[in-house]
Amino acid sequence: MIDFDYWAPTYIAFGRDKESRTGELVRRFGGSRALLHYGGGSAVRSGLIGRVEASLVEAGVEFVELGGVKPNPRSSLVEEGVRLALAEKVDFMLAVGGGSVIDSAKAIAIGAANGGEWRKFYVGREVKVRPTIPAALPVGVVLTIAAAGSEGSTNSIINLEPGNLKRGAGGDVLRPRFAVMNPELTMSLPPFQTACGMADMFAHLCERYFTPTVDVTLSDNLCEAVMRTIVEESAKVMADPSDYQARANIMWAGTLAHNDVCGVGRVQDWASHGIEHELSALYDCAHGAGLAVVMPAWMTYVYKTDPARFARFARNVFGVGRGEDDGAAALAGIAAFRAWLKSLGLPLTFAELGAKEEDIPLMVRTLNLGGNTLGGFRPLAEDDVTAIFRLCLG
Amino acid sequence: MIDFDYWAPTYIAFGRDKESRTGELVRRFGGSRALLHYGGGSAVRSGLIGRVEASLVEAGVEFVELGGVKPNPRSSLVEEGVRLALAEKVDFMLAVGGGSVIDSAKAIAIGAANGGEWRKFYVGREVKVRPTIPAALPVGVVLTIAAAGSEGSTNSIINLEPGNLKRGAGGDVLRPRFAVMNPELTMSLPPFQTACGMADMFAHLCERYFTPTVDVTLSDNLCEAVMRTIVEESAKVMADPSDYQARANIMWAGTLAHNDVCGVGRVQDWASHGIEHELSALYDCAHGAGLAVVMPAWMTYVYKTDPARFARFARNVFGVGRGEDDGAAALAGIAAFRAWLKSLGLPLTFAELGAKEEDIPLMVRTLNLGGNTLGGFRPLAEDDVTAIFRLCLG
Repeated sequence: MIDFDYWAPTYIAFGRDKESRTGELVRRFGGSRALLHYGGGSAVRSGLIGRVEASLVEAGVEFVELGGVKPNPRSSLVEEGVRLALAEKVDFMLAVGGGSVIDSAKAIAIGAANGGEWRKFYVGREVKVRPTIPAALPVGVVLTIAAAGSEGSTNSIINLEPGNLKRGAGGDVLRPRFAVMNPELTMSLPPFQTACGMADMFAHLCERYFTPTVDVTLSDNLCEAVMRTIVEESAKVMADPSDYQARANIMWAGTLAHNDVCGVGRVQDWASHGIEHELSALYDCAHGAGLAVVMPAWMTYVYKTDPARFARFARNVFGVGRGEDDGAAALAGIAAFRAWLKSLGLPLTFAELGAKEEDIPLMVRTLNLGGNTLGGFRPLAEDDVTAIFRLCLG
Repeated sequence: MIDFDYWAPTYIAFGRDKESRTGELVRRFGGSRALLHYGGGSAVRSGLIGRVEASLVEAGVEFVELGGVKPNPRSSLVEEGVRLALAEKVDFMLAVGGGSVIDSAKAIAIGAANGGEWRKFYVGREVKVRPTIPAALPVGVVLTIAAAGSEGSTNSIINLEPGNLKRGAGGDVLRPRFAVMNPELTMSLPPFQTACGMADMFAHLCERYFTPTVDVTLSDNLCEAVMRTIVEESAKVMADPSDYQARANIMWAGTLAHNDVCGVGRVQDWASHGIEHELSALYDCAHGAGLAVVMPAWMTYVYKTDPARFARFARNVFGVGRGEDDGAAALAGIAAFRAWLKSLGLPLTFAELGAKEEDIPLMVRTLNLGGNTLGGFRPLAEDDVTAIFRLCLG
């Protein structure tokens, strides 16, 4: 175990109807005038935005609104949000939605607290030391999609226009002050989006689990516990989208997969996320769908670096490969992972995702590694990334 | 899963030499004049108190000191601490020690923020709704014993004199703002104290794991992951007390066992803790040693309430009882638990603990159940508690 700092102060209000507490929670964490930020029409049509507004009114919180966040959230809307936040002198960012809405809200929170400046904090792989974000408005969340874990994380990813460069910012000031989590709000998600969310949270655990750090028994066991939970509950939630208990387990798993309780004390990887962001930036595909294509290819490419770790993954998460040698078990685990993704209806190849072989050089270039490498488990150079993309061809 | 609120905002600084950051962390969390609270001479003799003092001086934090906290911390020292904190106008409580020191610091933090009033917030089993603590000084911790989890919890237990009544207070205001956790500081603990600590943290997980709540896959898996880690690492740490990595895994396990990440969304039990507190109050034994006696007896008494849950415990934590029916597996699990405690050198019976059969009626009376019951898994009346004490006779 390596030294670590851990700080996950997000207040979680979990359960049915908890969105009625939104106003109280905004007040509790210092907000009196909020920018209510959300995505498409479904949150309005479902009545959720209305219930949140009513809760704000009841708590005496003033607010302005900005909807229209798209998946892979765009910098143009962030710019609009920053202008609005500054003009309206809001003191709180309230995100009602999934990871894209939350990440967009975090970007606006930075801009509003730094005189409009936010874009310079979003950087790519070419930067080894991220710029420190001096301040951000407090952010609160009403979560509607179990996936990204942004409700409990310090990170934000934005599609910078022009060019759709996916770039990230990070810092303690971005950690949401509260997250309202009502599993019922996720019941109306289409099956494909539910599946993408589970692939995303599972990937967040893989990025932490596959590590060169030794003697991390506790976080190894925690990662496996949450991964097993996602696999076990995924079958229930796909069979019955309104299974409250399965939705609840999945939703809480998404937060714990990414608030770093499963990741502290170990070198993490994050190569698959870096590679996938090129896919969703170029094709505007769902991040979870891109991960379903990239992660098994990454595993196939790197498992020989530490077959014992992949064998452990096979045996402890998918219950396969027992009695086999580590190399065979590792391959059995990767196959089981692929089979699980397929059972969720997710794509496994470029063709199924709608990606094109001829774009591989462009994506490798845009990843902008420079002379750096990608990933903590096995550092990857540009040639390695090309090889992993080629494994995605199927 | 039942509805829950979860808030664990303690900042953790984990690793070698992290005590050198104490002053910086006191400053970060609002302290400028601290009461440095600790136990016996070992923290002074080892040089730890000196290093903490140097860190405070370097950060420009003024401080006064009060040592002398004993295990099962006494109300008389709390009274002295409250007087000192008020007279010296401290704005921060800094605990350097284990659970007893932290709990004593929390009590002083209440008194100092409420005009000297603290005792009325410490109540027993006769009270169904605990009084709300309106305020407390912020508390920071430099942890020296991996056991109680008080560094990340909302609770405090004090021995109220006269009569040595163990009573508890709880509330968000008691959650420490930061915890410095250097596994090296635990290496000099005697083996018996190390073992008591592991029994205590394991018991914290059992109190959460044994629940009537269904559909809690995630927290079931998390509890089992942390319990397995404690068992696995316990052998290493008993074999080599200076095994840094084993100490690190155990230390972090102690925090996660009790900051409620493994317990939210489920009815918890806490009967064994309630019963044990009567033992440590009467005999001044180590809390973990008392738990080693009480927990297996409690398990033996209640397992028939839900043999499947105890069978799961047997199979997933101790790897026994596979292929057996649930009743047989449950008993195999309890036997394996007992064998593990014995392997740590812990007592399993009243005789080994130094407790006396004739004191059972007194302890049951002092538990002060009134007409209430004890425990969320299987509610226990006074007769049940008597029966469990009798099972402790061996």
